[in-house]
Amino acid sequence: MRIILDAMGGDNAPQAIVQGAVDAAKAFDTDIVLVGKQDEVRACLRECGGEGLSNITVVNATEVVTMEDDPTRACARKKDSSMAVALRMVRDGEGDAMISAGSTGALLSGATLIVKRVKGIRRAAMGPVLPNGKSGIVLIDCGATADCTPEYLLQFAFMGSFYAKKVLGIETPRVALLNVGTEDTKGGELQKTAFALLKAASDEGRICFVGNAEGSDLLTGKMDVLVADGFAGNVMLKTVEGAAKFMFGQLKNVFYKSTKNKLAALAVKGDLKGMKAMLDPSEVGGTAMLGIAKPVIKAHGSSDARAVFNAVRQAIACAQADIAGSIAANIDHMKINTSEGD
Amino acid sequence: MRIILDAMGGDNAPQAIVQGAVDAAKAFDTDIVLVGKQDEVRACLRECGGEGLSNITVVNATEVVTMEDDPTRACARKKDSSMAVALRMVRDGEGDAMISAGSTGALLSGATLIVKRVKGIRRAAMGPVLPNGKSGIVLIDCGATADCTPEYLLQFAFMGSFYAKKVLGIETPRVALLNVGTEDTKGGELQKTAFALLKAASDEGRICFVGNAEGSDLLTGKMDVLVADGFAGNVMLKTVEGAAKFMFGQLKNVFYKSTKNKLAALAVKGDLKGMKAMLDPSEVGGTAMLGIAKPVIKAHGSSDARAVFNAVRQAIACAQADIAGSIAANIDHMKINTSEGD
Repeated sequence: MRIILDAMGGDNAPQAIVQGAVDAAKAFDTDIVLVGKQDEVRACLRECGGEGLSNITVVNATEVVTMEDDPTRACARKKDSSMAVALRMVRDGEGDAMISAGSTGALLSGATLIVKRVKGIRRAAMGPVLPNGKSGIVLIDCGATADCTPEYLLQFAFMGSFYAKKVLGIETPRVALLNVGTEDTKGGELQKTAFALLKAASDEGRICFVGNAEGSDLLTGKMDVLVADGFAGNVMLKTVEGAAKFMFGQLKNVFYKSTKNKLAALAVKGDLKGMKAMLDPSEVGGTAMLGIAKPVIKAHGSSDARAVFNAVRQAIACAQADIAGSIAANIDHMKINTSEGD
Repeated sequence: MRIILDAMGGDNAPQAIVQGAVDAAKAFDTDIVLVGKQDEVRACLRECGGEGLSNITVVNATEVVTMEDDPTRACARKKDSSMAVALRMVRDGEGDAMISAGSTGALLSGATLIVKRVKGIRRAAMGPVLPNGKSGIVLIDCGATADCTPEYLLQFAFMGSFYAKKVLGIETPRVALLNVGTEDTKGGELQKTAFALLKAASDEGRICFVGNAEGSDLLTGKMDVLVADGFAGNVMLKTVEGAAKFMFGQLKNVFYKSTKNKLAALAVKGDLKGMKAMLDPSEVGGTAMLGIAKPVIKAHGSSDARAVFNAVRQAIACAQADIAGSIAANIDHMKINTSEGD
């Protein structure tokens, strides 16, 4: 197994990326390739004691994709950027999976242009796993494609289901459709048509569709995959993040209110930390870009070494899962609109 | 001031509705009309000591709209339902505002058919106020219309702005557009076109548009009005509810974990209750249906007496605010598509 890391992407690059890579290289039986400005990357390697590790190699790339670059063109314009080089390497089989904490838009466009989608897949989708106190839930899509068609949602359902089964280990993932109510007839045109497609796929035994779900159902454990258009999915994901932050802020206010409360806070501090960690996206790793022909993982822009470490673990799992293979084997049942071509 | 209450709508009707009405009749200088099966309503009035109150009257209605009724036809089919009778009364000026905790869909359809929209308004919108630790934030729309046009969103921006100013007392409400990123060019076609409309209205000084906002911005206090299509807004609202519930559940687990933690919980119990109350929708009252020609308030289906009491207070504020008057005075600037007619 060989994991390719964009060493220059993310708020804390290259230090956090290199540190996470070193930790992962020590923990996992895998090769790691760090792609980036080699002098900087090697300096970081020395700093964090990773110089002598035989399973880490460095590949030079002279440019860096930044948040200021036009995402749709970044990888095409900066051909020698760490992101573009890393994507070409995974495309060419010089690694089994690729990870970047750089610009989401640039990575999505770059992966689509360089690595390409699995034949027949209309749009790639971002499928993060949200902690729900159980096995987690795959929310797909959550921002790759704002305007979706019913066919896209059908493909997201299959891809999310493959991911939940092969990466999360859920034997028969329960797939729900995000809607404004749980009744079968709810929603706009997109949801009504998608509902019929998902139900038909479920009737044929290809996925296990459990019906519509509302925003409030996300963390209840009632489903393993939640299918959404990229706009609503993104709103949902960020709303959960914002709500958690708000609640922890309010909780902090409560605990700082009086000496009595401060003492109480001291008593539960460790357990609260555990609760916060459970809700921490860096524990999950990154977000798989599903539908791309090779495993590409988007790590959070603010990833620290721990998040990078977890993203490597996730990338290994994704490479072993071969989601692209499952898609290719089922693509005939994932298409409805042949006029769009392949 | 006279507030008309659908006494039969909601999970706890008529008891909770009547109890809330009695509490409000004692607290506020307002007349209250209870519409419903008069024997049941009068029995409830007796039970909660509201029989002798001179500012409560009962109007008989023999039918009840239930959750099983087709929402789009409920008020038309059950002409003598408490909901339909109450809506006709507010339409005919026999009261200044109407409240129901019954079916949201039936109330929306009934209000649109019976009370009607303000001339020129394309769609009514639901604009609940979410607690954010400050003055609150109006989220509009959050479920009335799943498929929106840019013009609808422009109208929601004006209506939400009027509500924030006249009901919440915010002098210059900051209006944001829900999107998948804060950059001006983010989102799908709907958001891009709506952005241009909101910016133009802001440049003319008619609203104060502060740009795009993400799901994570909802509770930060950065804006007073968040404009969304009814689908994404509904997802957002319910996701916040679900996330809060999940977090309180996790917190409970922490507090029950050990004797030490239980003692800590005891110490902060009162303050945590305050935090929970702050996040409690029943403290806000109900959701105004904006764009309807007279004030119509949807109280939460699970409203208890306290929620009904707060909904009455809110209805009084809405009636005094005369949002419909503000809309009528500004409608020429709230339309772009004249082909749809008025």
